[in-house]
Amino acid sequence: MWLNRDIVSIGDFTKEEVMQVIEKANEMLPYASSGHPEKPLSGKVVSTLFYEPSTRTRLSFESAVFRMGGNVLGFGSLEATSVVKGETLSDTIRIVNSYSDAIILRHPSEGAARLASEFADVPVINAGDGAGQHPTQTLLDIFTIWKELGSVDGKKIGFVGDLKYGRTVHSLSKALSMFDVSLYFISPEELKIPKHIKREIDKKVPVREAKNIEEIIEELDVLYVTRIQKERFPDINEYKKVAGTYVIRPSLLTRGKRNLIIMHPLPRVNEIPPEVDSSPHARYFKQASYGVPLRMALLDLIFRGD
Amino acid sequence: MWLNRDIVSIGDFTKEEVMQVIEKANEMLPYASSGHPEKPLSGKVVSTLFYEPSTRTRLSFESAVFRMGGNVLGFGSLEATSVVKGETLSDTIRIVNSYSDAIILRHPSEGAARLASEFADVPVINAGDGAGQHPTQTLLDIFTIWKELGSVDGKKIGFVGDLKYGRTVHSLSKALSMFDVSLYFISPEELKIPKHIKREIDKKVPVREAKNIEEIIEELDVLYVTRIQKERFPDINEYKKVAGTYVIRPSLLTRGKRNLIIMHPLPRVNEIPPEVDSSPHARYFKQASYGVPLRMALLDLIFRGD
Amino acid sequence: MWLNRDIVSIGDFTKEEVMQVIEKANEMLPYASSGHPEKPLSGKVVSTLFYEPSTRTRLSFESAVFRMGGNVLGFGSLEATSVVKGETLSDTIRIVNSYSDAIILRHPSEGAARLASEFADVPVINAGDGAGQHPTQTLLDIFTIWKELGSVDGKKIGFVGDLKYGRTVHSLSKALSMFDVSLYFISPEELKIPKHIKREIDKKVPVREAKNIEEIIEELDVLYVTRIQKERFPDINEYKKVAGTYVIRPSLLTRGKRNLIIMHPLPRVNEIPPEVDSSPHARYFKQASYGVPLRMALLDLIFRGD
Repeated sequence: MWLNRDIVSIGDFTKEEVMQVIEKANEMLPYASSGHPEKPLSGKVVSTLFYEPSTRTRLSFESAVFRMGGNVLGFGSLEATSVVKGETLSDTIRIVNSYSDAIILRHPSEGAARLASEFADVPVINAGDGAGQHPTQTLLDIFTIWKELGSVDGKKIGFVGDLKYGRTVHSLSKALSMFDVSLYFISPEELKIPKHIKREIDKKVPVREAKNIEEIIEELDVLYVTRIQKERFPDINEYKKVAGTYVIRPSLLTRGKRNLIIMHPLPRVNEIPPEVDSSPHARYFKQASYGVPLRMALLDLIFRGD
Repeated sequence: MWLNRDIVSIGDFTKEEVMQVIEKANEMLPYASSGHPEKPLSGKVVSTLFYEPSTRTRLSFESAVFRMGGNVLGFGSLEATSVVKGETLSDTIRIVNSYSDAIILRHPSEGAARLASEFADVPVINAGDGAGQHPTQTLLDIFTIWKELGSVDGKKIGFVGDLKYGRTVHSLSKALSMFDVSLYFISPEELKIPKHIKREIDKKVPVREAKNIEEIIEELDVLYVTRIQKERFPDINEYKKVAGTYVIRPSLLTRGKRNLIIMHPLPRVNEIPPEVDSSPHARYFKQASYGVPLRMALLDLIFRGD
Repeated sequence: MWLNRDIVSIGDFTKEEVMQVIEKANEMLPYASSGHPEKPLSGKVVSTLFYEPSTRTRLSFESAVFRMGGNVLGFGSLEATSVVKGETLSDTIRIVNSYSDAIILRHPSEGAARLASEFADVPVINAGDGAGQHPTQTLLDIFTIWKELGSVDGKKIGFVGDLKYGRTVHSLSKALSMFDVSLYFISPEELKIPKHIKREIDKKVPVREAKNIEEIIEELDVLYVTRIQKERFPDINEYKKVAGTYVIRPSLLTRGKRNLIIMHPLPRVNEIPPEVDSSPHARYFKQASYGVPLRMALLDLIFRGD
């Protein structure tokens, strides 16, 4: 039942549905650079309402819409703050609802996409709502693992960095726990994965926590790196100590499996130095590139059904 | 004579021309959600130069252009201030004139659209020029009355709120005075309709002023509500007293005609509480949705003639 | 060898290549207002990454892409500063590289376009990089001379205004020195053409410097005017004296050749008064309009080869 479906939370997806999206994205892959030959969105208008900036997500959605033959209207954030200020989100949604065939929403408040989906007749796609969800990022991360390693089942996947605040890690680890995987959480004490998330995942798949990447690098098929933000630390020296520990140095990678892949939701700061870019393990730019076929897949499913 | 016509002021329209736009908008209505089958703007480029922010007007114009098969370039305001700063409007217009087939202009200064139309060879559509004109809003308001009530002639239309400063009310009431209507102006003493406007309208149609909606709610076919802005009042208490008086409560509506419709140019703040949204009288979101077919109608007339 | 070529610096072009662009732009001229009948960019996506504002360049590129049947994504500056902040240019380029078929880049840092071209697989077009290059402006300037005067060879071209800091003048004068032209540099002492540029040009074509336009106005076929910026002068009175001297008054033009053309990269401030706009010598708005066919020509060469 994909036709006109809202994409609000990865929690709304079954494993079968995730796999349907993955397979559709694989089908879209050649069209992501040349354009879909059937132009399934011809004559369609998609709104991108970005109340917060996001180059990557917004531009890859726009590219996906264009590659499918559609058009895009909307705003990209700075404008939004002044323009829609004073109007409730539900009012804005009800209006834009009549200007377009789907709404892609990024909003600073958790729950914004769910609210929007209740006021819109057209499908709403959540492009990130604060500390909440960012389901298309999670889907493109799973697609990357599937595509680069041939399957998700059977893989050992380690998350490193800020596991406390990063919504990317929370969503992705929950979604992966629907698969037959082992998950590893590597972080400083201050940024450990929240207990309620660990508990939920623990019921379904093997989970292990570690303080150092070195302890477990040899076991991993995927090392998913995230940024550690200075702002999380009251003491800058504490930050510096910690940040240095979680940098992915080329020397570390020599100890990994031959097929180990390094992923990162980007933007990165210092946690992956540029020397790693040319490593055969590096997949973070490839991962970003999958944003287009993955989003084309969702648009195809929503606009044409399965 | 619609081909390449500038749309600067509603005062330039005869009643016959208004009706031509209304009928064309009605024709466009099914295409406003599915796209015009003939793509009359295929290969065309329309500029949206918004020196002031305006989600509703800009997005509905862009949707209209896309539904007609055209493309849009331009800027959406914050940018504008820094970019075009220091260049005269006439210079900017002469340049953009050569980049596009029509110019849609919003500008903070009254008269800007008229000036632009003198420097552009391509048609200029006024999307609001300060305290001046916003003719496409007026046309969509008239279309809403016509569509929702079956006709404009014979209707009793009340305006409530800030009738002193609101250009929406000034333009619409003047345009409606070309029809066989009765007009009611309901406002606090401080925000009464300006005398010169009332005098002009008075010559053509019956006009009545009132201080309370209750006095006349039973007579009305249309209640057109506008926002009362805090900034208009030197004393905040005075504002609060007044604002509360002009809130459209559900209890008030029970006293209205069965077919009474409530309109509002949006955004609203507190003057229409959310409880009214589900009332059969509420038409303000429908009104906003008519922005697309109405603007498609104008584009069709300007690009293809009648 | 035009297919997929980066357009970084006018210094990368031979005279033959400049002429190829000029002739292609001439071919595109009728399509610049009606759209290219073959839609050579159908299904293609072009990124416009503007880290600095630029109405003229951005809008004319977007118009060119639309006239060729393509789509545009990107950002227009204010947004950019907040969005892509903290990410290296090379990372942003590698990502956007996978979202689009070509990248048009404006950036405040000299060398940014060259760097970008090294990280992108898709062609990069430099739309201005700080004090560096702006090759499409130079090409459209040459096209203007060629189109308005019938040829470039044999012409006497004078530059007036800020010849010290203006990258437009530096690039154009270097490019013109590949042709059989005479060049004249007219500026206040403080804003003379840099010695290393003059020396380079001097080897190839006759060069003359002057302090007053009056001295040489009678000889010129082209008077290329640029803005003198207040900020260049420590003393405002010095600025005022100088600025007044280099204003192109109608009386001055009466002494010029019958076919003299006045060009300006725009925006202008006071250096060309509005009275000159209606003069048969004025070509600066025509020059701006050539931005679209010129950029269409480059897109055609890059996407389809020669």
